Amino acid sequence: MIVTFTDFGWEGPYIGQMEAVLRMRAPQVPVVHLQRDAPTWNPRAAAYLLSHLVEPFPAGTVFLCVVDPGVGTARRPIILQTPKAWWVGPDNGLMIPAARDQGLLGAWTIPYPELEPSVSFHGRDLFAPTAASLAQGESPSGEGIPLDTLVGVDWPRALREVIYVDAYGNLVTGIPGAEMPSSARIRLHGHTLSHARVFGAARPGEPFWYVNSMGLVEVAIRCDRAASRLHAGIGAGVVVEGLPGGDADDKGA
Amino acid sequence: MIVTFTDFGWEGPYIGQMEAVLRMRAPQVPVVHLQRDAPTWNPRAAAYLLSHLVEPFPAGTVFLCVVDPGVGTARRPIILQTPKAWWVGPDNGLMIPAARDQGLLGAWTIPYPELEPSVSFHGRDLFAPTAASLAQGESPSGEGIPLDTLVGVDWPRALREVIYVDAYGNLVTGIPGAEMPSSARIRLHGHTLSHARVFGAARPGEPFWYVNSMGLVEVAIRCDRAASRLHAGIGAGVVVEGLPGGDADDKGA
Amino acid sequence: MIVTFTDFGWEGPYIGQMEAVLRMRAPQVPVVHLQRDAPTWNPRAAAYLLSHLVEPFPAGTVFLCVVDPGVGTARRPIILQTPKAWWVGPDNGLMIPAARDQGLLGAWTIPYPELEPSVSFHGRDLFAPTAASLAQGESPSGEGIPLDTLVGVDWPRALREVIYVDAYGNLVTGIPGAEMPSSARIRLHGHTLSHARVFGAARPGEPFWYVNSMGLVEVAIRCDRAASRLHAGIGAGVVVEGLPGGDADDKGA
Repeated sequence: MIVTFTDFGWEGPYIGQMEAVLRMRAPQVPVVHLQRDAPTWNPRAAAYLLSHLVEPFPAGTVFLCVVDPGVGTARRPIILQTPKAWWVGPDNGLMIPAARDQGLLGAWTIPYPELEPSVSFHGRDLFAPTAASLAQGESPSGEGIPLDTLVGVDWPRALREVIYVDAYGNLVTGIPGAEMPSSARIRLHGHTLSHARVFGAARPGEPFWYVNSMGLVEVAIRCDRAASRLHAGIGAGVVVEGLPGGDADDKGA
Repeated sequence: MIVTFTDFGWEGPYIGQMEAVLRMRAPQVPVVHLQRDAPTWNPRAAAYLLSHLVEPFPAGTVFLCVVDPGVGTARRPIILQTPKAWWVGPDNGLMIPAARDQGLLGAWTIPYPELEPSVSFHGRDLFAPTAASLAQGESPSGEGIPLDTLVGVDWPRALREVIYVDAYGNLVTGIPGAEMPSSARIRLHGHTLSHARVFGAARPGEPFWYVNSMGLVEVAIRCDRAASRLHAGIGAGVVVEGLPGGDADDKGA
Repeated sequence: MIVTFTDFGWEGPYIGQMEAVLRMRAPQVPVVHLQRDAPTWNPRAAAYLLSHLVEPFPAGTVFLCVVDPGVGTARRPIILQTPKAWWVGPDNGLMIPAARDQGLLGAWTIPYPELEPSVSFHGRDLFAPTAASLAQGESPSGEGIPLDTLVGVDWPRALREVIYVDAYGNLVTGIPGAEMPSSARIRLHGHTLSHARVFGAARPGEPFWYVNSMGLVEVAIRCDRAASRLHAGIGAGVVVEGLPGGDADDKGA
């Protein structure tokens, strides 16, 4: 299976052109567009979102990930290997939290001597052909990369920030719910929020946090848009209070 | 074929996560996303829309339907069987008008002992695996449900309300066009509308009704947005005048 | 492979209904939705966009193209054949620039005696079944059409207009980048724009032109929306200055 994760949005032919390359070069391999509205040009926020979306996929999946503000610069196009999957995308940290959770086995550059910078579209011209080759059983053809030179290998395990705002204005954070006892509180833009197990258990109009279906801590307001009410968006810092053995200023890791 | 019908919209990974489960568990079965913008949290309006979209599908289709404001409450997750199809979704009426048109043969609950309410996403964790099993030829494993206990079995055949507003501001009603002679008129928010066979036959700026490509009565204004001009949206009541043997207050059924 | 190119947008069941017909009638053939937001009801602008999107597809591709403001009028539904592909859609010029580039081999009408104009949706009821038949190896069953009677056969090779506005407000023109030396300038709504090879090479706030990933000349402003700043949209005329042997008033062809 080839799984795409991009910030391309819906407009234009971009996802379609990329899918066409995949279908041409790996006709027997199913393609699933996991998400098209990853945080735009924000590989760090997108990385923590991705890391909570990849758990269920079968062994051999190729993740084709494009959130790539550095396209056209010297950032490396790379392949990562984990025990369960291949990962194809830019060397900007985007794939690291997810791949690191599975266990990084290797990394390679993707050679691309002949692409014209101006008229090339790396998702279509470089990453999609590479993903199709890997899905067909081919091996990486580029040079190996020492794992400790990859952008993002030193990033913390949790990101105490808002990483995504969903269609209802809910604020998804980069904090795994598994780390949060229900007694913990969250501070966000001067508000201190308590836990509610489900929406129905929260008071209308009062912001709360809960663990969403990705397993991430999410801030919401029943019958309202938390993003508007709390004036918060991607990048807003989140402080956790009441962790066992932790404190309010403990940042990530 | 597995056909999805949801109110998930386009943002986020939700459709992608659901599709991934389907592709993993039923790799040979095509998946078609029929509609993603069913009326949000409105299973009744969505039900009448769905009932006009399912006619052409081949025998053996599994309809995976998620418009589910009651997720997390005691509403039952169910399977329905008709001569041509399986139906998987919540017991809130969503699938009834469509399945009833084909002929209801049976209904079953979907067992789900171990799902965590807070971190579960029924479309991905419960309905998609069930749909994949049925598409693979397995039988329902839950308990049978008496058909007369299903939510929606007593709903009328037509819904004299606006059930969907399309991208052009046209107002789709739950009234089958087959029931409407072209001499009939429609009253909506104080306006009385006559029939036009096609857009080209209507006067610019004047609201009219016609039978749309789903076979439903739709209210439109040539070169304008009927929803804005008539201040009407989903749920707005529609009165039909001039039915043979009927009258203006005859409500549905 | 069947490739769809439409102006249907994302709302509603329309793409889903069309795809369902394709999957039912040609179950083994992959379907790629290349673009859903082709210029609305503007087959001429859409045609020049399409002509820059079809190059990489494999031999035998069926392009199913629906930008069709004339549906319900006397415009002919047609099939075109080129050495590499079949083309199915309306006779309004939409497919001509793309098919002409490949070399037009033949054209046929699509017979449709029994469709009800009011409840028919040509994408679903006429073009999709035809595309599926061709993808299955069947031959056109309608009458041949003299190529010189096709709408659009006399259109110029380049369209010196804005043909698409992308999600970032960039203005895509119908001018192939291959024809433009980097010394050429563009006049658009009173502004004269110079070339930049990539975004990073342009000055923030200053409009420039470059060759986009489709190979078309595109007008953009780094960190701003060119469409808003230049008050330009689809149809805005573009004058090219500084072509070798050309002049500012040379129009296309």
